[in-house]
Amino acid sequence: MTEKENNEDSEKLQAQLQRVIALLSKYKLLQGFVNLQDEIDEALADSSIQKESLDELRQLIDKLHPADIAHILEALPLDDRLFIWGMVKPENDGEVLLEASDAVRETLITDMGLHELVAAAEQLDADEIADLAPDLPQDVMEDVFRSLPIAEREQLRAAMSYPEDSVGALMDFDVITVREDVRLEVVLRYLRRLEELPDHTDQLFVVDRGEHLKGVLLISKILVSDPEVRVGDVMSKEMITLHPGDNAQDAAYAFERYDLVSASIVDKDRKLLGRVTVDAVIDFIREKTESEALSLAGLREEEDLFAPVLKSVQNRWVWLAINLVTAFVASRVIGLFEDSIEKLVALAALMPIIAGIGGNSGNQTITMIVRALALGQINSGGAWKLIRKEVGVSIVNGLIWGAVVGLFTFAIYQNVELGLVMMLAMLLNLLLAALLGVLIPMTLRKLGRDPALGSSVMITAVTDSGGFFIFLSLATLFLL
Amino acid sequence: MTEKENNEDSEKLQAQLQRVIALLSKYKLLQGFVNLQDEIDEALADSSIQKESLDELRQLIDKLHPADIAHILEALPLDDRLFIWGMVKPENDGEVLLEASDAVRETLITDMGLHELVAAAEQLDADEIADLAPDLPQDVMEDVFRSLPIAEREQLRAAMSYPEDSVGALMDFDVITVREDVRLEVVLRYLRRLEELPDHTDQLFVVDRGEHLKGVLLISKILVSDPEVRVGDVMSKEMITLHPGDNAQDAAYAFERYDLVSASIVDKDRKLLGRVTVDAVIDFIREKTESEALSLAGLREEEDLFAPVLKSVQNRWVWLAINLVTAFVASRVIGLFEDSIEKLVALAALMPIIAGIGGNSGNQTITMIVRALALGQINSGGAWKLIRKEVGVSIVNGLIWGAVVGLFTFAIYQNVELGLVMMLAMLLNLLLAALLGVLIPMTLRKLGRDPALGSSVMITAVTDSGGFFIFLSLATLFLL
Repeated sequence: MTEKENNEDSEKLQAQLQRVIALLSKYKLLQGFVNLQDEIDEALADSSIQKESLDELRQLIDKLHPADIAHILEALPLDDRLFIWGMVKPENDGEVLLEASDAVRETLITDMGLHELVAAAEQLDADEIADLAPDLPQDVMEDVFRSLPIAEREQLRAAMSYPEDSVGALMDFDVITVREDVRLEVVLRYLRRLEELPDHTDQLFVVDRGEHLKGVLLISKILVSDPEVRVGDVMSKEMITLHPGDNAQDAAYAFERYDLVSASIVDKDRKLLGRVTVDAVIDFIREKTESEALSLAGLREEEDLFAPVLKSVQNRWVWLAINLVTAFVASRVIGLFEDSIEKLVALAALMPIIAGIGGNSGNQTITMIVRALALGQINSGGAWKLIRKEVGVSIVNGLIWGAVVGLFTFAIYQNVELGLVMMLAMLLNLLLAALLGVLIPMTLRKLGRDPALGSSVMITAVTDSGGFFIFLSLATLFLL
Repeated sequence: MTEKENNEDSEKLQAQLQRVIALLSKYKLLQGFVNLQDEIDEALADSSIQKESLDELRQLIDKLHPADIAHILEALPLDDRLFIWGMVKPENDGEVLLEASDAVRETLITDMGLHELVAAAEQLDADEIADLAPDLPQDVMEDVFRSLPIAEREQLRAAMSYPEDSVGALMDFDVITVREDVRLEVVLRYLRRLEELPDHTDQLFVVDRGEHLKGVLLISKILVSDPEVRVGDVMSKEMITLHPGDNAQDAAYAFERYDLVSASIVDKDRKLLGRVTVDAVIDFIREKTESEALSLAGLREEEDLFAPVLKSVQNRWVWLAINLVTAFVASRVIGLFEDSIEKLVALAALMPIIAGIGGNSGNQTITMIVRALALGQINSGGAWKLIRKEVGVSIVNGLIWGAVVGLFTFAIYQNVELGLVMMLAMLLNLLLAALLGVLIPMTLRKLGRDPALGSSVMITAVTDSGGFFIFLSLATLFLL
């Protein structure tokens, strides 16, 4: 990466992608041409012009940042992807695998041999190997494990032992520690002996002989302080310390709230285990919000854009199956009222309006509540206030939209009673949506479940079946 | 914040919130008691026990980080919120306003006088004032403007001139610049003269006399290098430079991809304007993903959890109105087939199944495509491949789920033809969902619109009305 190439970053990335594609198709075109020629003239087989275009492509790829290579691989269909993957320098393999999305990583790993994989993993730090571990074949992991020095083996074992959404899973082991009683001058001399500092080193960790954390020494403090003072005099005892078992989401909020670059991780006895850095936190936030967005839409996991059809079907079937069940239930609710519909067929045309708007309104409520729960803004005392407010909103909405649908109904069917039933049904279904929009996520939370998961399906199921039932039973009572 | 208090961060935050609430209700209880006593004995009015509980509350709040105070204010109903807000030390006012969500900030600002607001704003940097500016009354901004030194006035004017989603809006002006030809020793001496470095200073910017950016000098490089070498010899020319007009989202991706802590912002002539730091990027990512999640659920903006009912109604009505229109259209589509439904009332009970599953499947496709568009992974050549894939998925799903609903229909109505029509309708509606799930977001993008906005409403509208039409017209053709 030269300076110039990073200007206008995103356009540049697009341009790089376009250029890879252009070179690739030029190469493929030439190859097709050569294959054609093959039959005529063997000597032309490795035509120099074809080689040239391949060299150009290879040079381009060699210059790219591993994260950019991963991005380009994700944007390419499988055959092109593997062709480019084969051109990546072996020493970049590990980094590219780390940066690629889970689904794309899988396609890359499948294409690699045992030795290639072991070599790729060995270039990485213990915490990075742990991130790849779930995707690597068992025998690769065993080979990698054996090849590591003892200290890193321990780190790898530790890193792999933490659950996915814990602080431990974000931990890295690259910490610089100093003692409280040395002078800054000594620290400076010590640092100068290192060839480079670990990335994102904004602070050194001050520990005692037993590796217990005593404080942190900010790099900027080292720079602005007199070299003669002791670490203990300028170190800060105000610091965020995390435990490996802490929820990673809470750690992310701490980084956000206190604008951190790194934070220490200690065990129960305050022994320093490692640290979390802001780049891991950003990746975590992005992955978390993305997997929430995907699961909201009913996709089990991030999907390779060019995944084979059957793989996509697998990724999507659970959601469709669940929704089909709720649709069957709603259908049977309507089935109960077939006599009424036969007598007044307008009901069939009107009932989806009640169900649909109820679902929209319920999802608005549930989104607010889920968000507030995630931020820890709802305490038990507040629940009643929230229900009161949501019920208030639904009554106002019910009156407004009830009147609108009532008028719509009257305009089309010239039937005042039918319009009034529509209005009442709308009001009641919005009330139902508001109540359950608060109660469903709060109950899930109380049961120890994630309120973000499934809330939306549940509220839609309730407002569909409930909406049909409310409307059709009111119609049966008052109109027939 | 003492060290201990930051342990187990999130629980601590919850505990702080609980303690504020407890102290608050104790105080209110005592006040009620005092008011009662008031009529009996005036002398008891400022009972010392009441004062004590108030002092305890004030001490607790004084110790809190501004971000934590903002969090607590967001979790409190309006009257309690304003009571606590009155206890916050004036020198923290500006920071708390910055940290609070837009909706809550509005309630706090409404409660403040002109002088308080001016004083609060004056504690902040120019770029921070610019963040608050849209919420501040005109006369406050004029006063603040007059009170600033000329250089900061210019900065404030610049910061306010950039559109919300641009890199300029994330800019801060706290940069340390050095010259290429000085030795590191001189840089170290210069830094030592500063009392502290700006937050998130991981690099100094190397500029010439005209403030043109020549390179960056990493702080860690200063620490590990020989003090005798010159800046030019250890500075890095490989760096990310942003422009104030760049898309903030793209800058965020660059931070994520290249693990940055800060990046320079330059103008067209490479003159250094300021920098972006990772904390601003995290806040941006969080706000962006949140506003997307909210708009997906039909909430116009972040809502104060305890907003008055009418304010919430305003925040939600647009979405409900749009959905009502699409529901009316779907209802009229059904209306076209009232004769058919009258003859075979089972159609009324079955039609929501076709529409519902079509909507789910379409939203799965659209979520994938919108995400891939945002990441720049779809190029024009790939579009056909994607359509082919999604159509493939929908055919497989159509056959599977079509068979399931066909069997369900047969089991309930003992009618083979009806089952076959259900199956065919399901297949066709899923095909429609797949085609439009790709075409809608890609067309929006081509028209220069944000594909994330409105895609979901549009696909649901199409699969609802389309599903009803497909099913009912097939039924009319083959069954009646």
